[in-house]
Amino acid sequence: MINDKLPKIWYGGDYNPEQWEAPDWAEDERMFKLAGIDIATINVFSWALIQPDEDTYDFSGLDAMMDRLYKNGTYVCLATATGAHPAWMARKYPEVTRVDVQGRKRKFGGRHNSNPNSPVYRKFAAAIAGKLAERYKDHPALLAWHISNEYGGYDYSEQSEAAFRLWLKERYGTLDALNKAWNTRFWGHTFYDWDEIVVPNELSEEWNGNRTNFQGISLDYRRFMSHSLLECYRIEYDAIREHSKDVPITTNLMGLYQELDYFEWAKYLDVVSWDNYPALDTPVSLTAMTHDLMRGLKQGQPFMLMEQTPSQQNWQPYNSLKRPGVMRLWSYQAVARGADTVMFFQLRRSIGACEKYHGAVIEHVGHEHTRVFRESAELGRELQQLGDKLLDARSAAKVGILFDWENRWALDLSSGPSVALDYVGEVHKYYDALYRQHIETDMIGVEEDFGKYEIIIAPVMYMVKPGFAKKAEAFVRAGGTFVTTFFSGIVNENDLVTVGGYPGELRSLLGIWAEEIDALLPDMKNEIVMKESWNALKGSYDCGILCDLIHSEEAEVLASYGSDFYAGMPVLTVNAFGEGKAYYIASSPDADFLRAFVGNLCEEKGIAPLVTAAGEVESVQRVKDGKSFLFLLNHAASELPADIGAAERTDLLTGRAVSGQVMVPARGVMILEGALQ
Amino acid sequence: MINDKLPKIWYGGDYNPEQWEAPDWAEDERMFKLAGIDIATINVFSWALIQPDEDTYDFSGLDAMMDRLYKNGTYVCLATATGAHPAWMARKYPEVTRVDVQGRKRKFGGRHNSNPNSPVYRKFAAAIAGKLAERYKDHPALLAWHISNEYGGYDYSEQSEAAFRLWLKERYGTLDALNKAWNTRFWGHTFYDWDEIVVPNELSEEWNGNRTNFQGISLDYRRFMSHSLLECYRIEYDAIREHSKDVPITTNLMGLYQELDYFEWAKYLDVVSWDNYPALDTPVSLTAMTHDLMRGLKQGQPFMLMEQTPSQQNWQPYNSLKRPGVMRLWSYQAVARGADTVMFFQLRRSIGACEKYHGAVIEHVGHEHTRVFRESAELGRELQQLGDKLLDARSAAKVGILFDWENRWALDLSSGPSVALDYVGEVHKYYDALYRQHIETDMIGVEEDFGKYEIIIAPVMYMVKPGFAKKAEAFVRAGGTFVTTFFSGIVNENDLVTVGGYPGELRSLLGIWAEEIDALLPDMKNEIVMKESWNALKGSYDCGILCDLIHSEEAEVLASYGSDFYAGMPVLTVNAFGEGKAYYIASSPDADFLRAFVGNLCEEKGIAPLVTAAGEVESVQRVKDGKSFLFLLNHAASELPADIGAAERTDLLTGRAVSGQVMVPARGVMILEGALQ
Amino acid sequence: MINDKLPKIWYGGDYNPEQWEAPDWAEDERMFKLAGIDIATINVFSWALIQPDEDTYDFSGLDAMMDRLYKNGTYVCLATATGAHPAWMARKYPEVTRVDVQGRKRKFGGRHNSNPNSPVYRKFAAAIAGKLAERYKDHPALLAWHISNEYGGYDYSEQSEAAFRLWLKERYGTLDALNKAWNTRFWGHTFYDWDEIVVPNELSEEWNGNRTNFQGISLDYRRFMSHSLLECYRIEYDAIREHSKDVPITTNLMGLYQELDYFEWAKYLDVVSWDNYPALDTPVSLTAMTHDLMRGLKQGQPFMLMEQTPSQQNWQPYNSLKRPGVMRLWSYQAVARGADTVMFFQLRRSIGACEKYHGAVIEHVGHEHTRVFRESAELGRELQQLGDKLLDARSAAKVGILFDWENRWALDLSSGPSVALDYVGEVHKYYDALYRQHIETDMIGVEEDFGKYEIIIAPVMYMVKPGFAKKAEAFVRAGGTFVTTFFSGIVNENDLVTVGGYPGELRSLLGIWAEEIDALLPDMKNEIVMKESWNALKGSYDCGILCDLIHSEEAEVLASYGSDFYAGMPVLTVNAFGEGKAYYIASSPDADFLRAFVGNLCEEKGIAPLVTAAGEVESVQRVKDGKSFLFLLNHAASELPADIGAAERTDLLTGRAVSGQVMVPARGVMILEGALQ
Repeated sequence: MINDKLPKIWYGGDYNPEQWEAPDWAEDERMFKLAGIDIATINVFSWALIQPDEDTYDFSGLDAMMDRLYKNGTYVCLATATGAHPAWMARKYPEVTRVDVQGRKRKFGGRHNSNPNSPVYRKFAAAIAGKLAERYKDHPALLAWHISNEYGGYDYSEQSEAAFRLWLKERYGTLDALNKAWNTRFWGHTFYDWDEIVVPNELSEEWNGNRTNFQGISLDYRRFMSHSLLECYRIEYDAIREHSKDVPITTNLMGLYQELDYFEWAKYLDVVSWDNYPALDTPVSLTAMTHDLMRGLKQGQPFMLMEQTPSQQNWQPYNSLKRPGVMRLWSYQAVARGADTVMFFQLRRSIGACEKYHGAVIEHVGHEHTRVFRESAELGRELQQLGDKLLDARSAAKVGILFDWENRWALDLSSGPSVALDYVGEVHKYYDALYRQHIETDMIGVEEDFGKYEIIIAPVMYMVKPGFAKKAEAFVRAGGTFVTTFFSGIVNENDLVTVGGYPGELRSLLGIWAEEIDALLPDMKNEIVMKESWNALKGSYDCGILCDLIHSEEAEVLASYGSDFYAGMPVLTVNAFGEGKAYYIASSPDADFLRAFVGNLCEEKGIAPLVTAAGEVESVQRVKDGKSFLFLLNHAASELPADIGAAERTDLLTGRAVSGQVMVPARGVMILEGALQ
Repeated sequence: MINDKLPKIWYGGDYNPEQWEAPDWAEDERMFKLAGIDIATINVFSWALIQPDEDTYDFSGLDAMMDRLYKNGTYVCLATATGAHPAWMARKYPEVTRVDVQGRKRKFGGRHNSNPNSPVYRKFAAAIAGKLAERYKDHPALLAWHISNEYGGYDYSEQSEAAFRLWLKERYGTLDALNKAWNTRFWGHTFYDWDEIVVPNELSEEWNGNRTNFQGISLDYRRFMSHSLLECYRIEYDAIREHSKDVPITTNLMGLYQELDYFEWAKYLDVVSWDNYPALDTPVSLTAMTHDLMRGLKQGQPFMLMEQTPSQQNWQPYNSLKRPGVMRLWSYQAVARGADTVMFFQLRRSIGACEKYHGAVIEHVGHEHTRVFRESAELGRELQQLGDKLLDARSAAKVGILFDWENRWALDLSSGPSVALDYVGEVHKYYDALYRQHIETDMIGVEEDFGKYEIIIAPVMYMVKPGFAKKAEAFVRAGGTFVTTFFSGIVNENDLVTVGGYPGELRSLLGIWAEEIDALLPDMKNEIVMKESWNALKGSYDCGILCDLIHSEEAEVLASYGSDFYAGMPVLTVNAFGEGKAYYIASSPDADFLRAFVGNLCEEKGIAPLVTAAGEVESVQRVKDGKSFLFLLNHAASELPADIGAAERTDLLTGRAVSGQVMVPARGVMILEGALQ
Repeated sequence: MINDKLPKIWYGGDYNPEQWEAPDWAEDERMFKLAGIDIATINVFSWALIQPDEDTYDFSGLDAMMDRLYKNGTYVCLATATGAHPAWMARKYPEVTRVDVQGRKRKFGGRHNSNPNSPVYRKFAAAIAGKLAERYKDHPALLAWHISNEYGGYDYSEQSEAAFRLWLKERYGTLDALNKAWNTRFWGHTFYDWDEIVVPNELSEEWNGNRTNFQGISLDYRRFMSHSLLECYRIEYDAIREHSKDVPITTNLMGLYQELDYFEWAKYLDVVSWDNYPALDTPVSLTAMTHDLMRGLKQGQPFMLMEQTPSQQNWQPYNSLKRPGVMRLWSYQAVARGADTVMFFQLRRSIGACEKYHGAVIEHVGHEHTRVFRESAELGRELQQLGDKLLDARSAAKVGILFDWENRWALDLSSGPSVALDYVGEVHKYYDALYRQHIETDMIGVEEDFGKYEIIIAPVMYMVKPGFAKKAEAFVRAGGTFVTTFFSGIVNENDLVTVGGYPGELRSLLGIWAEEIDALLPDMKNEIVMKESWNALKGSYDCGILCDLIHSEEAEVLASYGSDFYAGMPVLTVNAFGEGKAYYIASSPDADFLRAFVGNLCEEKGIAPLVTAAGEVESVQRVKDGKSFLFLLNHAASELPADIGAAERTDLLTGRAVSGQVMVPARGVMILEGALQ
């Protein structure tokens, strides 16, 4: 349990009372009660308010607000206020603002505006976090600490340049090692002095966001920036822990956010929390995958849904309303996939600046007679009713999909073979195939314990880091099924190619050699033509983007290309390795292939679907103490059936006992408790 | 009359004789006479020429040119030469060049290149304007003063930053008031010292042109920049007026130009003038609307068409020729809508630099035997024939459409609800519906006297400035018909939301409450389903972009949504208020709806179409001394009929008497004088 | 012959052994032999390696490598290593890095990174080139010098600004002359001091790459930058020549690269060399045209194919494999069009940084059992077999197409009439029409001897430089056929319009006057309607982009426009002039028209197609000593016939005698030796 002071699914969200006056606060209290809200995240952007100058701290307003909230029955997730530094600080210490990727020194403005390697910024950030911890560590309202807000954005200042050199010295020891790791003899880049190394931005090696001349330095700079921002987090963490020994500490992550290696970050978070902002047309399975990834950051430990909108965003191009029932449906999607909180940005709408059209539980109209409030209050009641039933329940997935930020960075930075290659998109293709067939899946990092799984899928495992190949081999040798794809096994952790034949370190496991890699033009495709012998996959499927031209060395060929000059060469192979099997998919297949393919794998390993239902019905279970909580989430606008099997289960939201075929209401939710099978 | 020294529609345009040598000047004189040209705008870009260094002024060339032109029968619109500062000034006083929105200090180059808050620039600009006025105030050729040229472009220099702080101090008095107006407690932006405020550009709050983190500062910076450039204009105005007491002063505006609040500017112009550059595919009704807007800047006072091209531009992507007759047609369109001058850029084509492919009366070939010259000369003859008949004639419109630059800025800067929302496009939809039905329309500002109108349409009246709601209520109470739309009444003049229910201050007038605002994805639409009872509008029409989910409080529901979860909720309402009616259109309708809707409103108010004709025939009248001058402009490539009613009128261009159905030639013009009805 | 030490088509390419260790070198040697590789370009990016600091040079590695290669039978094309400056130099002398078009001072990074007007850079570059020449001038492996690498990129530093002013002083002598040439009275740009002139970039006159306010300064800056980079080349050239008197010197050009005037550069190259990187969907005739242009730079002298990829690139969006046979086919295409070398980038693939996915003869797998290596080795054998047969053979074309970089710059910089106008595209349309009809064509500069040709085509000859019109007239007067098009004859070398009627200086030759130039919107077209009388062209063809409205003065009208208001006006004219004819095509025609048109011209002049065959079969001949070497290159994926005429020829690749109809294999090549006819 995140904090047993509130043993239920926490319900509330971001709250910025400093933007209003006291009469509104009383209204807020009244409406929080109506909505069943029991937690408020406060103080997120109050740095300028509580520290009006270098030497003054004023906690009087915060004291009063903490007390008011507690008195009203609302707990607090207390932020450290460092989400944006004050204007006075930027004016007095210009070093606290960033230099951007274009090399431009920024002035005060926005948020994500602090130079993470500014000593002044770090000093002030640690100080305020420490003072807050000292002051509120024992406040009865306090449930969790929330450090800064949505860390992100890279800096290219001279402070970061200096810190980068030190980080490199620590990583490589010698310039010789660095020159080798970055292959600097290419384009005459040999460094003879650490000070010759400059930050890789538009003034040196990079352009257009992810284009670079030198993958080595650019990849390391992403590692370094993720690390720098994490250091800022850790400085505040330590400052809090000095005073507040037990209260859990987190910072709100952003799902698939590109810039930070969240697997590394999660090691320093007591509990993962994240902000979920799908658009009207975001595939629901992509949201599901992101929840699973956030759960996977800490080996399946439940997480906090720190932010979602009750209805609208403001920063998307088209900020559509969440249709009736959808906020509830997506809230339960989060819970189904591991969230032990349901929290909103925001409890009351701002009236000015860029987020005023972001939805809130309390809308601009100010009263409770709105659709959004009614839906919020109904959910509040249900969550109260659920009590602590679901808290700490875990996944029971036997299939894991690997996701790795360093691999993603390396792919994004690659010059060639194709701009159409999209790591997240490829991962999602595999996830979606499992999702639509009601197979429970974990999203896992490369450091995860593979022993928990029957099947591990590693789409585009381009970068093979030290130890990974041996680990994958051990997994398969012991009976596991391993699947990887085209453009895998190509480089080591420094983006240096493993010579001697692709897929490099994975070659013996897969039993193939990839001689060439063809990049198709946007209007080109090829076909996966199945051999007759293999399971239920028959006939031909489309594939594209990249086509590895592979030779089987040990593997059995299950399908071959249907056209182009490599027609007849293998496109799908399986290699018996120890007790297990290793599959290689040499191109990017269509959805039909993937569903049939992963369906077969699961069948082979005896992994049964949770239910029999259409793909619009999402199904997933959480398990605890021998019990299974099966979630059925109908994303369609009409009622749909699902067959849950013969064993009887109880719907926690209605109390009814069900078995066999159940009807899931349009945009409806069922949480079915039963015995774990 | 702009200046009664030339009591006819002035005919001429920009003329840069300094780019050629004397023999060409003699040819120019000969051809001006052939073309009926009687005014030349000179000295627009001569600053470097007449002030070769800080201390030297040399007017000898200008003296001679003024005299030559006058002797040849050509009057002068004399520019103050400050359209671009000299290179020597940029070199000696770097402060005169701008810092751009990216924070880059500019060097010498282009035009629109002066820092409007540079004291040095202002001093030099005032000096040259004063010297010109002193020298030429009594020159017989002088008809008007033309200050600078096409003011525009924002500056972000330290001089502007300092001036912005002073402007803010004056506007808000205290930092408390400013912090409140900008809602700076959002994202921890509280300012404790005026010097903490920095200009909002890509180094602080803005990106991508109109994206900002803080609407308050960005909106104020647009106000401030419009004001700063206007100050530059006014400094020159005052310098001229010190010597030249009566000659009218203007600067050429640019129609729908985004950056300057022309309603504010017009207060300081003796006569509005503007530059009209439609492309081959610009809707003619958009050009008409822009003319009406320019006329509306000074309450219907006739304006100067300061620039148009005889045929081609150079700066559009595809610089098509004006088809035969089109230059004449569009010239009369300007006159029909209030222009008392027809002037070109340019009288002779440049031979070098970026405007050499911009059309001119005298083309590069240099003689009069060109289509362009022949058409110019024919128009010149007609304008001579028209004499002073039309001068000072006014509009008689009973319908006004509101246009407000501050509202436009606020909408452009808004983060959410939809990037598809385009203020000018929405205004034009309503204008076009009236235009195609031959209803005279004025484009008016929010400070206009509403009492002149029967119907006022305020599309997307997002920002309601102080006093506006009361004024609209008074208008309706007295019997007027007021129409507004979705996303209206949302914020005050500081872009702070009016809480308590949209449409805020307009709510009681409209008798509705807008609970939510849905943004449709680009491929989505909804329908306006008419109730059976209302006038000629039957059946269903498409709508989209945004859909307000409204509740009627007092209003009658005339139509409801046809689909989505808000099917059946009102989309069109009317509220009886005093003697009048207030309509609310909750989404952006298609053209069919709008034509039927505004047609019905006009019928209800007894506002008759000027003629019965196809939409390709533009009709509009100017009235003076009890007479009506009815313009029929056929934009089609074939002859079209128009019924002008039974009363006899005289065609000023042919002298023929006409009544009933007349045939308007392809791309032809009729100016029909008759009694005002 | 480029260097008679190796009297055959050189075969090899870029080789960077410094990126690997000695054991790999032995493998390289073995595989070079297997592949028939006899030349390696080395030392391209080794500056940092051989000059580790300001005062130290270390040639030991290079000494050893030169010796090893020679011992192994591999000759050397020795680069001067200045393709990228060392990091230590950028750190110690910041002036050596560039300022970019946005005005940003660059740090160390990438290549093309040196400020060409930095005295420090020039000193160091000359020093290393001289030292290399002194050391290796007599090395038996040395075949050619390769200065720097792919010169390109503009600089906007203060050093370049100062040098630009000096260059301008030399070009114009006086500021008066410069002010006139740039037409600076436009927009008040008169300069009174050379120091007022600033570089034209985004901080002054330019934006979006090729948009400018002042064509004059922007055009001159392109000339100046081409000149500055050429000076860098020449400084190294002179430093080499001081020691190495006879070995040919080159630098590798980039075909249609926009930024450098290669006709000017070629004057200072002993032999032209270039890098050919077509994509999978690049039209083969565009590649052919580029080869012809590179050959034309030095009046038809054979050139070096310095770089091509064995299979893939890395920097294209989609880096497709070269299909089997295509590398050979395209290699022979180069030879057919004048290459006396076939060289690759690269002999062995890098393992790190941005070119690691660029193909190589030795792939990452490291052994010879790859498709790419097999194809490379087969070609190597064929080239050995061909010996010196083809060396120094020349073109026998009677048709020349003019190409001029200054004209191209001026068109690219033009503001109006249409953004759709693309000089290279227009030139290619004409080239392609000839190519598909098997007419030999030379791509020539305006300084070429026109007397060699029967037909000269000058598409969009917008800029007419001094002497050109007289030269064209002399050519036609003597019996030549001259073809030019719309928007020709407009400006002089300073982009100043030639007044008095378009096409200016070409008017009397063409016998027409272009009164107006219409720019069509993207979805518009017009038609070329043939008069009945003219040759085989009948009926109507499409045309578009621009339409000149022309009047015939002396010329015969062969076709007229089919629509719009200028329907019936001439669109195709021919003027009898002396013994020859001058054609004017007033719009951009479709491919059908062009093929028929150029086909007729050739027939009229007795220029016969080389073969009768489909357009997919490319044909071209090289001639030497009374012999003709006819190349047939089948770009289709299936066998195609070609009729080569009755005379017997010998296929050099098979030794077989052939005549009449031959079958060219799919993606196959025939080199048919016969008597020159």
